[in-house]
Amino acid sequence: MKKQILPKGFLAAGIHCGMKKKRKDLALLYSEEECKVAALFTKNIVKAAPLILASKQLKKNKGRIRAVVINSGNANCMTGKQGLKDANETSELTAKALGVAKDSVLVSSTGVIGKLMCMAPLTAGIKKIVLELSKNGLTDAAEGISTTDAFQKVSARSFKIKGRKVTISSIAKGAGMIDPSMATMLCYVMTDANISKAALSKAVNETTEISFNSITVDGDMSTNDTIMLLANGKAGNALIQDKGQDFKIFMENLNAITKDLAQMIVRDGEGSSKIIEVRVKGSAKKTDAKKVAQAIAKSLLVKCAVLGGDPNWGRIASSAGSSGVNFDTDKMEIKLDGVVFFVNGKDVVNSPKRIEKVFKGKEARIEVDLRQGRHEATFYSCDISKKYIMLNARYTT
Amino acid sequence: MKKQILPKGFLAAGIHCGMKKKRKDLALLYSEEECKVAALFTKNIVKAAPLILASKQLKKNKGRIRAVVINSGNANCMTGKQGLKDANETSELTAKALGVAKDSVLVSSTGVIGKLMCMAPLTAGIKKIVLELSKNGLTDAAEGISTTDAFQKVSARSFKIKGRKVTISSIAKGAGMIDPSMATMLCYVMTDANISKAALSKAVNETTEISFNSITVDGDMSTNDTIMLLANGKAGNALIQDKGQDFKIFMENLNAITKDLAQMIVRDGEGSSKIIEVRVKGSAKKTDAKKVAQAIAKSLLVKCAVLGGDPNWGRIASSAGSSGVNFDTDKMEIKLDGVVFFVNGKDVVNSPKRIEKVFKGKEARIEVDLRQGRHEATFYSCDISKKYIMLNARYTT
Repeated sequence: MKKQILPKGFLAAGIHCGMKKKRKDLALLYSEEECKVAALFTKNIVKAAPLILASKQLKKNKGRIRAVVINSGNANCMTGKQGLKDANETSELTAKALGVAKDSVLVSSTGVIGKLMCMAPLTAGIKKIVLELSKNGLTDAAEGISTTDAFQKVSARSFKIKGRKVTISSIAKGAGMIDPSMATMLCYVMTDANISKAALSKAVNETTEISFNSITVDGDMSTNDTIMLLANGKAGNALIQDKGQDFKIFMENLNAITKDLAQMIVRDGEGSSKIIEVRVKGSAKKTDAKKVAQAIAKSLLVKCAVLGGDPNWGRIASSAGSSGVNFDTDKMEIKLDGVVFFVNGKDVVNSPKRIEKVFKGKEARIEVDLRQGRHEATFYSCDISKKYIMLNARYTT
Repeated sequence: MKKQILPKGFLAAGIHCGMKKKRKDLALLYSEEECKVAALFTKNIVKAAPLILASKQLKKNKGRIRAVVINSGNANCMTGKQGLKDANETSELTAKALGVAKDSVLVSSTGVIGKLMCMAPLTAGIKKIVLELSKNGLTDAAEGISTTDAFQKVSARSFKIKGRKVTISSIAKGAGMIDPSMATMLCYVMTDANISKAALSKAVNETTEISFNSITVDGDMSTNDTIMLLANGKAGNALIQDKGQDFKIFMENLNAITKDLAQMIVRDGEGSSKIIEVRVKGSAKKTDAKKVAQAIAKSLLVKCAVLGGDPNWGRIASSAGSSGVNFDTDKMEIKLDGVVFFVNGKDVVNSPKRIEKVFKGKEARIEVDLRQGRHEATFYSCDISKKYIMLNARYTT
């Protein structure tokens, strides 16, 4: 079990209210004082009602909120005007129960698309969950936002900024490749750091880029994907601006947390299956390295090669070539689990002994050096899991 | 068995030369007189040697050739200078054996990436195959270009243009989702139509767009993908220009053939599995309908829903929304196998009886009406096949 420390001034809770049969299906994150929030939402044009509402609320309240309430079991998406009304009612009911201002409670939902919310259990649940808020509620909250997740995703750490103790705690959910109908990624990061709005906004963008935007599970972009970064300033450190040493320290710790959670998402539900790390270096442009890494990580054929323990480097070269990035194929080097397979325009003849362990372990490392420049990027993926295969095979038999 | 008529003045052959263990692995398409050719090659930056050579040759000979020689078993890709030398030698040897000009023989290869060609069996095979050329060699040639294809892909038809009989005959190969290392798509179309170079070039582009560029099997773009359209003018019809009634009749027949072959590729290797037809209409721009259809057809989550017989229309809406096309979700209509699931911004409550057959047949039809304009597009896909699943599951157990 992960440490469930919460930053100063934050409380959390997770309960079962009846949206799902048994497991926890409601979570509440609460700041004792007003906190700043920076959020990122899905780029999918089909956006769930809570995301539309939250965007409006964030404009109204200028990015200052008191709480986030999250239900699992129903995504409240493609639900039209009634869905927006339900999301708004959820926000208002929670604000009322907490005794805080209207619009200072953001809502998130995850679950099935296209079904109207069942408001009765949610209404009762909200009244109940505010009474459960506690310093120790982080793991319960993580459970409350889960759908098909095989384990709760919690990551937290404390560190010093100019002698002041600062804490960042985060929960996330997401596990693709298991249940096709629930692949939403949610992440909520709370910190007691005193940080400027500009720095908070920069932080959420930068950290998402190297974590949640650097993993691929099933390649689909959910209608409900949400990342929120909440900061209440209770650590009492000097205001962190969007550059300088303090920001650097903050980012190092924030990045460690989001990377940790992103990798948990990739690992989740994979049973005895493999995680794939794709590292691309030597690109001329920064964006190029990521494009190539992503093309390799997303390739179904590469995933199959890894699953089958087959060091099929030609397939990796082909995926890199389909990324849209221009490079000289004769210059590229391809290493699989540390063994060079292609270099100086030539296939390397490796002894069977040398390659017998390649792609046979729990983690597969794919390294591509384009030898065109100095930029690099890492992308994480997983092979097509046995569980996923079994689930789908069962459907048809 | 498909009819194996060849257009006037064309001969074909397919033999086993020893690149593969048992099955035919070499094909030759030959025109008794010089013919015009229009070709399309993969957009993958990693291009196999024969494609690099063919591009050069087509410039040199101004798009006029005599033959195409195709081997299966080795893709001659990522093989550096030696690979180019081997492709060139293959072209020269074939030209010599046929007694035609250097550079009038194009080469194609399909098979494993990154291994040097084994030239000995190929050299012997070329000498042998020229003796096998015949009016009845089309199906043999189709077998010669196959890799993991479960059946030969041949399509041909004759029709009249201003009273003159014109024939179009074509062979193709391609079957993704079975063997991850061999997903190349090749297609060779021969016609005796008398057609201008401009019309031929327009024809290959337009027909590819609505056939091979409107299917998705595994989403990967191969290093060897090739489509060639050869015309020798032997039908004796008045020259077809790039517009007008004659071009229209030619395109109708050409499109019927390439669509036929494209659907064979989607169907191949799917065992008892399903073909998915995604039809998107009502888009504001022509390209938009295709983008949305492609996003839905490519979605692994949609494929799973179809495989599982689960009418999960929310997942289809979500995929459409991730296509990058802007539309009003409240206006869209979603029909699965003829049953409306979402319309006027609302989930349609269907009786269990009404939906019991949805996604349960051999063909799944997904229809999306964006209600934004008058454009439409159709994309074909397949679910994740049982065979594919079993093959991969076997790897790990």
